[in-house]
Amino acid sequence: MTPAESAPRYGPADALNYPRFEGIPTFMRLPHVLDLTGVDVAIVGVPFDTGATYRDGARFGPQAVRTASRLLRPYNPALNVNIFDYLSVIDYSDLPIAPGFIVESFAKIEDGLRPLYEAGVVPIVIGGDHSIVLPELRAAYAAHGTVGLAHFDSHSDTWDRYWDQKYTHGTPFRRAIEEGLIDPARSIQVGMRGSIYSADDLEDAERLGLEMITHREMTDLGMPAVAERVRRRVGSGQTFLSFDIDFIDPSCAPGTGTPEVGGPLTREALQLMRGLTGIHFAGFDLVEILPQYDVAELTAMTGANVIYEFLSLLAVQRSQQRS
Amino acid sequence: MTPAESAPRYGPADALNYPRFEGIPTFMRLPHVLDLTGVDVAIVGVPFDTGATYRDGARFGPQAVRTASRLLRPYNPALNVNIFDYLSVIDYSDLPIAPGFIVESFAKIEDGLRPLYEAGVVPIVIGGDHSIVLPELRAAYAAHGTVGLAHFDSHSDTWDRYWDQKYTHGTPFRRAIEEGLIDPARSIQVGMRGSIYSADDLEDAERLGLEMITHREMTDLGMPAVAERVRRRVGSGQTFLSFDIDFIDPSCAPGTGTPEVGGPLTREALQLMRGLTGIHFAGFDLVEILPQYDVAELTAMTGANVIYEFLSLLAVQRSQQRS
Amino acid sequence: MTPAESAPRYGPADALNYPRFEGIPTFMRLPHVLDLTGVDVAIVGVPFDTGATYRDGARFGPQAVRTASRLLRPYNPALNVNIFDYLSVIDYSDLPIAPGFIVESFAKIEDGLRPLYEAGVVPIVIGGDHSIVLPELRAAYAAHGTVGLAHFDSHSDTWDRYWDQKYTHGTPFRRAIEEGLIDPARSIQVGMRGSIYSADDLEDAERLGLEMITHREMTDLGMPAVAERVRRRVGSGQTFLSFDIDFIDPSCAPGTGTPEVGGPLTREALQLMRGLTGIHFAGFDLVEILPQYDVAELTAMTGANVIYEFLSLLAVQRSQQRS
Amino acid sequence: MTPAESAPRYGPADALNYPRFEGIPTFMRLPHVLDLTGVDVAIVGVPFDTGATYRDGARFGPQAVRTASRLLRPYNPALNVNIFDYLSVIDYSDLPIAPGFIVESFAKIEDGLRPLYEAGVVPIVIGGDHSIVLPELRAAYAAHGTVGLAHFDSHSDTWDRYWDQKYTHGTPFRRAIEEGLIDPARSIQVGMRGSIYSADDLEDAERLGLEMITHREMTDLGMPAVAERVRRRVGSGQTFLSFDIDFIDPSCAPGTGTPEVGGPLTREALQLMRGLTGIHFAGFDLVEILPQYDVAELTAMTGANVIYEFLSLLAVQRSQQRS
Amino acid sequence: MTPAESAPRYGPADALNYPRFEGIPTFMRLPHVLDLTGVDVAIVGVPFDTGATYRDGARFGPQAVRTASRLLRPYNPALNVNIFDYLSVIDYSDLPIAPGFIVESFAKIEDGLRPLYEAGVVPIVIGGDHSIVLPELRAAYAAHGTVGLAHFDSHSDTWDRYWDQKYTHGTPFRRAIEEGLIDPARSIQVGMRGSIYSADDLEDAERLGLEMITHREMTDLGMPAVAERVRRRVGSGQTFLSFDIDFIDPSCAPGTGTPEVGGPLTREALQLMRGLTGIHFAGFDLVEILPQYDVAELTAMTGANVIYEFLSLLAVQRSQQRS
Amino acid sequence: MTPAESAPRYGPADALNYPRFEGIPTFMRLPHVLDLTGVDVAIVGVPFDTGATYRDGARFGPQAVRTASRLLRPYNPALNVNIFDYLSVIDYSDLPIAPGFIVESFAKIEDGLRPLYEAGVVPIVIGGDHSIVLPELRAAYAAHGTVGLAHFDSHSDTWDRYWDQKYTHGTPFRRAIEEGLIDPARSIQVGMRGSIYSADDLEDAERLGLEMITHREMTDLGMPAVAERVRRRVGSGQTFLSFDIDFIDPSCAPGTGTPEVGGPLTREALQLMRGLTGIHFAGFDLVEILPQYDVAELTAMTGANVIYEFLSLLAVQRSQQRS
Repeated sequence: MTPAESAPRYGPADALNYPRFEGIPTFMRLPHVLDLTGVDVAIVGVPFDTGATYRDGARFGPQAVRTASRLLRPYNPALNVNIFDYLSVIDYSDLPIAPGFIVESFAKIEDGLRPLYEAGVVPIVIGGDHSIVLPELRAAYAAHGTVGLAHFDSHSDTWDRYWDQKYTHGTPFRRAIEEGLIDPARSIQVGMRGSIYSADDLEDAERLGLEMITHREMTDLGMPAVAERVRRRVGSGQTFLSFDIDFIDPSCAPGTGTPEVGGPLTREALQLMRGLTGIHFAGFDLVEILPQYDVAELTAMTGANVIYEFLSLLAVQRSQQRS
Repeated sequence: MTPAESAPRYGPADALNYPRFEGIPTFMRLPHVLDLTGVDVAIVGVPFDTGATYRDGARFGPQAVRTASRLLRPYNPALNVNIFDYLSVIDYSDLPIAPGFIVESFAKIEDGLRPLYEAGVVPIVIGGDHSIVLPELRAAYAAHGTVGLAHFDSHSDTWDRYWDQKYTHGTPFRRAIEEGLIDPARSIQVGMRGSIYSADDLEDAERLGLEMITHREMTDLGMPAVAERVRRRVGSGQTFLSFDIDFIDPSCAPGTGTPEVGGPLTREALQLMRGLTGIHFAGFDLVEILPQYDVAELTAMTGANVIYEFLSLLAVQRSQQRS
Repeated sequence: MTPAESAPRYGPADALNYPRFEGIPTFMRLPHVLDLTGVDVAIVGVPFDTGATYRDGARFGPQAVRTASRLLRPYNPALNVNIFDYLSVIDYSDLPIAPGFIVESFAKIEDGLRPLYEAGVVPIVIGGDHSIVLPELRAAYAAHGTVGLAHFDSHSDTWDRYWDQKYTHGTPFRRAIEEGLIDPARSIQVGMRGSIYSADDLEDAERLGLEMITHREMTDLGMPAVAERVRRRVGSGQTFLSFDIDFIDPSCAPGTGTPEVGGPLTREALQLMRGLTGIHFAGFDLVEILPQYDVAELTAMTGANVIYEFLSLLAVQRSQQRS
Repeated sequence: MTPAESAPRYGPADALNYPRFEGIPTFMRLPHVLDLTGVDVAIVGVPFDTGATYRDGARFGPQAVRTASRLLRPYNPALNVNIFDYLSVIDYSDLPIAPGFIVESFAKIEDGLRPLYEAGVVPIVIGGDHSIVLPELRAAYAAHGTVGLAHFDSHSDTWDRYWDQKYTHGTPFRRAIEEGLIDPARSIQVGMRGSIYSADDLEDAERLGLEMITHREMTDLGMPAVAERVRRRVGSGQTFLSFDIDFIDPSCAPGTGTPEVGGPLTREALQLMRGLTGIHFAGFDLVEILPQYDVAELTAMTGANVIYEFLSLLAVQRSQQRS
Repeated sequence: MTPAESAPRYGPADALNYPRFEGIPTFMRLPHVLDLTGVDVAIVGVPFDTGATYRDGARFGPQAVRTASRLLRPYNPALNVNIFDYLSVIDYSDLPIAPGFIVESFAKIEDGLRPLYEAGVVPIVIGGDHSIVLPELRAAYAAHGTVGLAHFDSHSDTWDRYWDQKYTHGTPFRRAIEEGLIDPARSIQVGMRGSIYSADDLEDAERLGLEMITHREMTDLGMPAVAERVRRRVGSGQTFLSFDIDFIDPSCAPGTGTPEVGGPLTREALQLMRGLTGIHFAGFDLVEILPQYDVAELTAMTGANVIYEFLSLLAVQRSQQRS
Repeated sequence: MTPAESAPRYGPADALNYPRFEGIPTFMRLPHVLDLTGVDVAIVGVPFDTGATYRDGARFGPQAVRTASRLLRPYNPALNVNIFDYLSVIDYSDLPIAPGFIVESFAKIEDGLRPLYEAGVVPIVIGGDHSIVLPELRAAYAAHGTVGLAHFDSHSDTWDRYWDQKYTHGTPFRRAIEEGLIDPARSIQVGMRGSIYSADDLEDAERLGLEMITHREMTDLGMPAVAERVRRRVGSGQTFLSFDIDFIDPSCAPGTGTPEVGGPLTREALQLMRGLTGIHFAGFDLVEILPQYDVAELTAMTGANVIYEFLSLLAVQRSQQRS
């Protein structure tokens, strides 16, 4: 089947006739649609930032990424694919949340994502702080059971508690393992760097059964080898990819909540993303973009491009299924 | 007829349940609708800034005002009216324009507005630079014939040419008079201040048949008396209100293209707007907001509030028609 | 007793020898002290912003105000008083809170303030969002019983719930009345302006037994008359003064969470503060400063000056007690 | 003699043909000229900021004001004068200074200004911090002897020493009196506000023989009466006008070194300037603009307009001499 | 001939005596001269940005680059050359353009550059958006006939039309080929990356006869090899070098109109420039710097350094001709 | 001896219970202590910037670095050390200086540091501009005699004079050699790049007896080899490490006074720092951070991490002494 035979239902506005600064700023100026018929992928904002332990403001992240995404064009030359030849993509807008109330919001997020999973739609979530990955994984679990995890971040986010509380943006992956939402044996964390509370922090990954590639190892390996390690670890099962923008160096992504200097450049992060072909992705999130701390939309554009590579991976997968 | 009898079709999202930072940022989070059935008022972006003679960037104005408008609530205590009890309001998104091409874009703007006028919808245009008022007035003329003009601005915008060109943001009202779109005898300019090219500049208003209340006269009169002068001048015919954000002092509205220091505060501008009850408004525009030069959305919020007062005037008028 | 007889224990560093940009930035470069012996007034940061319904980031407010306060000098010519001739003032640093957890943090705030009240120290709290005034009033109640309230704000903050939750920065004063912490008959709200949810919102003040002077009335009365109304309402009992920085126009205080354009200038706000001599103040807070949205420390300096006027009122009161 | 008979030699570029954002940014795009023949007034930058006691950065002030001045047009409707009908004005560029070295720079500044005074050119100096007024007055003294002083500022700048040093931006007017450069009996300070070190600070004006109109008195009097008081005080002799941008409220002029909130608006400052007709001005400076702390050139534009009013006063004076 | 025998006529001010923040900000504080006698190279601003399809504001680019260039010193240790030993360089200021009017401005730009080419002066143009390269090439053609092109950019700018218009910043090189201004066989494009409209976009280069080194190829080759490929392609004929600042990663150059994340660092770009010795350059432009989106002059300084390397290449060439 | 046997006296606040945005912002929230008993290392602010030749504002550097340092956690995984297991560290606050007066301030700085050296405390100085390294070296000399120097910078700072003055931030190392404070044979400069005044500038290092590794050589060698060269050069004697933040590329550290584009990334700089084990450090400074030009605390965080690596080196050294 060629793309022309059955064109996807939803795609972006035409930038050559309708200038890219025009129109209501949905992601890539895709239609804002709530009916999931004929939809492959949905962009979903989750502007919840009550889990932040240092800077807050990620509640304005989804809109910043949407606005910056207007510069994106449909064809990805790095992966040789026109996304919208293969995928019908919508902007589902933001899930309702209750700012200031973590437990209540987690329920709303899980409830909000379930219809997408039930309809076979892959959700691309824009956060929000990293605490939201827990209800995301709960919703993924309801549809797919335990999933594998690829986690790109400068922090492992497997601390147990902050101020004696279980739910913050520093603890979601420990909670997810405790709740059986992810399979540690199919999970891998990539990019950890910067100062930590104690030597235990890094050993936690091992204790929890996770594989970890620290920033130093990542630098030594090079991105193609890291991508290969990720692909091997997550295998052929359903996999969730969680991308914290602070994985990338703050010179390239200053607008984030707990920056760690000395990380990979955006080109390296995109190279890593492009290496992840062949994985069966159940879902994805991009978190921790705080536009209040951004400059000239740099972080938001970087985030939009990370999502764009994920969309491209899905399109490549779909194109291979067709042929 | 009371509001309850026949509720307007379109109104904003509920801020007490869906936090105001959520959702695709239409104006006041009104529905983005293109079907004009059951619509009283439409918010229309015209992100055209090719007419700017100094700073450009007003193409990003409509979205900035929309985003800032999310803080607005439905009831205006200053005019004692819940806007959406009386008006069905939509966000019509942006008219397609051709950035860089004035004549072509003017045609697109005029064409884009005509269906609204034909459907009896009052357009609230967010610019863009002030050059767009010319095609706006052409569209209004097609529906209503010659209209009266209330023009709030720090500049008279009645220069003849810039660099030997007829169409810029400094010349639209001279063109509108030449084209017979506005009736000078029913037109008034308010707020002119700052340095000018020559003594002729101010006398142009008189020569063109316009009434002018300069900033100094406005300060002496006080806003209630100015509003009365405006109401008297425009009379009972169809009237277009054009509001250049640089009417307001740049301490309150720094994000604009050709700021003039020493003007009225926002509270004075809102007081003036609130005094304009009883006018039959054919259309409205708010122009010259450049978010690149704004701080903390101050200008965009100020602009959103100016629009809000205009919406309230329409609602008051509608409420009086009903009773 | 003259100042010289018994100099207050704690005062600021000497700016003529130790430049004002030097040193650890406590408020006015006062000593950071935790022992309350010999202390009249304590500056206390409460960097809690989980109650914010729109922009967050007030957790960085206390430090911004402290840093900006370094420009302040000890003598207030408007009230003819050298603050530190009469008051021993310390910076008590920030109370520990649990960001993201409202109920837990309210307990920590109340517990943190109680020792100050027990030691007879007047706390000057720098927020944080306005939700913190509830635990502040609980602590004041424990020491003084029901207090009067002077509340300067653009919003009444007497809504019942946001997203079905009782504790946010839009609801504290309703809660305080329900809990019997403030005496409505000795309470007054000043400065309400901007759009609201419904006509009910303003009538709530009356229903709750509060006096309200809206922005329009305030403008008509003039600040001396407003101050007189406040003094009369709160009478001679213990009174809590709560100052939301969004009382002031955002041109003068852009760095805040839910700005309302069209308000009073800083000079008018300071004039109001200076008119409040003779009140017995149990406590004070200044809330809703978000430095992420500030420009050139303008909001933080404005806030620091509001606190400075409050300190001066306390010093005047003390000076009158002595003479 | 009419303007046409003998046109001034130097004037600005034509904004209707050469857009105002074009060209090397001299003040108002006047010619950069070093030969003083045929020159009435010279714009002179003195980018020296080593005298600053808090924020530094005024060394970038002259260029910021020049760049912002490009928006100014030649005719001042408030004073009914086309400046360049009566005055030949040049941009003399910046005097060489030695940043970091006060005494050496004072000598360079004095030496740099002397040729202007000797050629009968009125210098309009753009600072720089306020310390530079001392060498400016020394140069004026060399040409005119003791002059009168009109000083608009939020601070009196008559402190004796900072960190045991005589020359800072807080001390120049005490030094000028000690050196006999200004005649206290013909000198007046206007606009003092904000906290001070002690009650003595304000009394210093009296002790030094200066007249002072504090901010409170100024507000009570109104600007026309203040202008009258200034005119009366300085009389018919040669007078130096020194304008510190922090005279104006920081909402209108945030980009300054030691801001004091609660001051006059720009429109009030311009009104004051416009009231100063009939004074014989020997020289003028505008100081303490720090563009690093500015927003959207607001402070720089305000400063440019203050200079513009001064230029207009000179033009009015010249026009009256001719008629 | 040694430099001392015949010193170039024009060079920069002496930074060791006249601080670099002083003086009217011409490029490197070179003299602003219009007489082309004794001039080798002229810096020419072309602040035209009407061709921009997304962000506008490049009209303020020339002045930003000039101001940032003041930090540059005369000796380039990377190429071992003191530029001003071999070249007489002036700042020719900005060419008059008609903002908003593309065809008219193209004529003005071409006319403005012709006298330079006729006088044998190499123009270094600072844009402005990339549309200006078309009239620049027309002027070069008039002097030199068809030239070779080295084009460094993240976009190929060979699209046919935007909104049905031929002249925008996305189309100039297709136009230049159509007009016969450049010889495709001597032309090469380097650095293309990011999303595109379709697979055709990249193939256009081939179809048009251009050589293209995409970002991926460039990364694989390394900059010395890329420089070698450029040198080989353009050969010994007259060559125009066009440098779009968005060639460089937006972490290093955020202030641009259509940023593409994931590009080369500044040090890599400078390395590429330094490899271009031995080419006969007819002209050069640096385009698409938008200071409104810059941070701390980073983009402007980067642009100034790119120009500096080009100046150094010319100086090396001249030094080799002499020896 | 294990860490547990004798815990260092002073360490940072606990981030898991007291959120990192809370408290008076000392470096890493260490105690502000003036008594040097039981202290190994002291953080000392020297906010002096009168020596700056281009941008000033480094006087606000120490506080910016302190505030940004709050994100640092105690364990450094790169060097496998918990700093506070081995070192007792305090924040000594800022030394008093006399802004505007270089000679006087140098005396104050030297006097202020002497007690630290006498008490055997290693001072970590946060500047301030680079001129302060001269009095720092004078104080080090008083305690240790001539020291070796490791100097990381984009400039060599060995010029002789600026505007005929000996003391600026461009001259300290020439002065230090003249005064015999450092031993050129044990001194090395790393990272020089960018344009210079003449070919002599780089040769000065050789003439002065210093070793220099320019940016180009550094890039060729790689950081491990550079670190080895540094270790070999400084040998086993007491060594002072001076780190100018402009060593790092301005994309990673924009907030500095004389940026040079094209330098190393932060991760490379940290790698270099981590290679410096085994050196006997007498003192350290980090200079030239100007927060006015920073974005989202990026430069300040980078600086804080550089200091953190230095602290870690000291801890490693101490841990090796113990074992």
